[in-house]
Amino acid sequence: MKSGRDLRVVPPVDATRVQIGEPENLPERFAHRAQGMKASEIRALFAVASRPEIVSLAGGMPNLSALPMEMMASVTQKLILENGAEALQYGSGQGHPKLREQICDVMALEGIKAHPDDVIITTGSQQALDLISRIFIDPGDVVLVEAPSYVGALGTFKQYEAQVVHVGMDEDGLIPQALRDAIKTTKATGRKIKFLYLIPNYQNPAGVLLPADRRSEILEICRSEEIFIVEDNPYGLLGFDKPSPNAMRASDSENVIYLGTFSKTIAPGLRVGWALVPQSLKDKMVIASESSILCPSNFTQLVISSYLANQPWRDQIASFAKLYKERRDAALSALDKYFPKNITWTKPAGGFYIWITLPPEIDTNALVPKAIAAKVAYVPGTAFYADGFGSWSLRISYCYPTAERITEGIKSLAGVIKTEMDSRQIN
Amino acid sequence: MKSGRDLRVVPPVDATRVQIGEPENLPERFAHRAQGMKASEIRALFAVASRPEIVSLAGGMPNLSALPMEMMASVTQKLILENGAEALQYGSGQGHPKLREQICDVMALEGIKAHPDDVIITTGSQQALDLISRIFIDPGDVVLVEAPSYVGALGTFKQYEAQVVHVGMDEDGLIPQALRDAIKTTKATGRKIKFLYLIPNYQNPAGVLLPADRRSEILEICRSEEIFIVEDNPYGLLGFDKPSPNAMRASDSENVIYLGTFSKTIAPGLRVGWALVPQSLKDKMVIASESSILCPSNFTQLVISSYLANQPWRDQIASFAKLYKERRDAALSALDKYFPKNITWTKPAGGFYIWITLPPEIDTNALVPKAIAAKVAYVPGTAFYADGFGSWSLRISYCYPTAERITEGIKSLAGVIKTEMDSRQIN
Repeated sequence: MKSGRDLRVVPPVDATRVQIGEPENLPERFAHRAQGMKASEIRALFAVASRPEIVSLAGGMPNLSALPMEMMASVTQKLILENGAEALQYGSGQGHPKLREQICDVMALEGIKAHPDDVIITTGSQQALDLISRIFIDPGDVVLVEAPSYVGALGTFKQYEAQVVHVGMDEDGLIPQALRDAIKTTKATGRKIKFLYLIPNYQNPAGVLLPADRRSEILEICRSEEIFIVEDNPYGLLGFDKPSPNAMRASDSENVIYLGTFSKTIAPGLRVGWALVPQSLKDKMVIASESSILCPSNFTQLVISSYLANQPWRDQIASFAKLYKERRDAALSALDKYFPKNITWTKPAGGFYIWITLPPEIDTNALVPKAIAAKVAYVPGTAFYADGFGSWSLRISYCYPTAERITEGIKSLAGVIKTEMDSRQIN
Repeated sequence: MKSGRDLRVVPPVDATRVQIGEPENLPERFAHRAQGMKASEIRALFAVASRPEIVSLAGGMPNLSALPMEMMASVTQKLILENGAEALQYGSGQGHPKLREQICDVMALEGIKAHPDDVIITTGSQQALDLISRIFIDPGDVVLVEAPSYVGALGTFKQYEAQVVHVGMDEDGLIPQALRDAIKTTKATGRKIKFLYLIPNYQNPAGVLLPADRRSEILEICRSEEIFIVEDNPYGLLGFDKPSPNAMRASDSENVIYLGTFSKTIAPGLRVGWALVPQSLKDKMVIASESSILCPSNFTQLVISSYLANQPWRDQIASFAKLYKERRDAALSALDKYFPKNITWTKPAGGFYIWITLPPEIDTNALVPKAIAAKVAYVPGTAFYADGFGSWSLRISYCYPTAERITEGIKSLAGVIKTEMDSRQIN
């Protein structure tokens, strides 16, 4: 497969460029890692973007309008009446055995053969990211991630004082040769690479899909280099026209740590995700989770278990995908119609996100207040890099607003960008 | 107030005795902290103790028989029908604003005046312990804890590679002079003390209550030494005959980090706890929590919020306390009736636990298989020490089984202990 356009528009790998910041002069009462705990730009933005007059293309909240609330209410009521003593009690640190079985059925849709003993249920897949970081990362260890990558993962890796090295992507996702180069460059500095974190399906924030042949090639590279792969797959079942390729975990049960979640296929407010891990990691994951939260909520686990057991959940996911496809179509049409010619964007075949690349003179952070004034919000590209890169890119999400609002928001954003380009005489 | 009997039956403080274990020869692929992630004795025990033929005096599961399940089912159903789009969506990392207000009302029962802005809602108070550890503990830092202390807290401190120093208790809880000595001895070694962790009300595992005058004295010591206090208070509202003294946080909002939970007053399966923190810690706690779980479950938070808003929750807590008092009475009667004379135990005025001290020749870990054979389970004392101490003590819980089963279990346990004492010719 030929390599597509490089999303960074720079040579994809320069491991030596990435530096961990110097420690600040923090009070001695805190731990060293607490230096990384500062409010981010994206946090302040979300506070503003939640105002009703703003079209928010910023957040990644799933659209729950397709979720049948009466059915959810009925499932939940029945659960408490029939099994309240278990649902409201402490449960297993690893997660409820029945739900772990059902999760294996869900993963089978993407080619994964798994045993429930190897599944650990977590408070959203964010907690799985935290536990993996806890098990693997000593301060200064290297984590390889896509360029750009999920802001929540970057935050967790930072908290464990990892050195994050971004690996180049193009429109077909992570570039295998860029991965080889990054490994070589990083190893030359004497640092330990603990794992590669990637989102193969409809990536957050880039919206791109990693094809099957690249999956095989990346698996082979990481196996031979003894680098674990953390495969984060929140959107895999939300493909618009055809199913996504098999999960990477489907062809490697020893070297891939797989993360799943019900946040995008059922509801995020239940906070139920999971990790499927190689056997060698299972005990450590469970112990780390017990130390972190004692046990996940039996109640929300059993709500999901009842839903999976009694409802046509595959159809429900299909109706979510249909809803997102309509919104993706609206977003792409509006981009074609309103955006200037020398701006490019990805064309997602599933998921929630479009990645937009502007001329390098434009600073998308500086543009935020102007966009907010024009009643539209997005996330500046720098949020998705650990190293300050991304200033002329941005992410928009089409998951939550209606098609009409998306069109309106993109039109407003186009106006803001055009004005900025005109003022800088960019054509 | 005169000092009661020392629960350790040794000089209460010897900070130099506590050593962090040597690193093992772990694979380089894991983080250093992962060396502490090993299955514990208590974990294996609980697997056995859950068999129905065993009277389990081991676990700390609240008894949900007093919880009105029809009402819980109705609250939950109504919540989804009326507010499902919020309840099932992502929420605030800090926790739902309405529940944070209601939590302030709950804390007011123990004399605390708090602002909802300073409350962070967590996945059980275990997560709060994890976040505090994350913010404060660098490897080798010292955490002061009661002797004995909560096994779940010790596990978390260990995972953050803290050096845990136990401070002597007696029947009135933590001994202020022992705290002064521990601070002095520890500081002499050059180590940093990050905080004192304690459970003032009906302590886990000792069942003792810290009187008001000791609370003041300990607050004063920690203020002057600039050591934060982490006040863990799961059982404060479960006093049997009179309310517990005001929380320590009630008289110090700057130096006390307060932890609460609904696990013992409503239901643990919802996994809703909280931390009330000094303003200087708020942002760091929220950021740490977002990195850990993104946000707590809106759904379980709003179930609790609806329950608090619409149900007579104070009466409900009173009926829980009544239920536990009956079981405490059954346990103390059975201990008086069946246990040999040279064994002592605490007399809890609330909460879940009794701490039993045997003659020092008896190893309560070695006794576990014999107890299981006699169909009774308990937790050996060593689980509650970070340093291997506690081998001739044990914890029993009276919270979960019926009074009849408690009596039966204690009678069986007495038989096992008597046989052991006879075989060792202890009188």
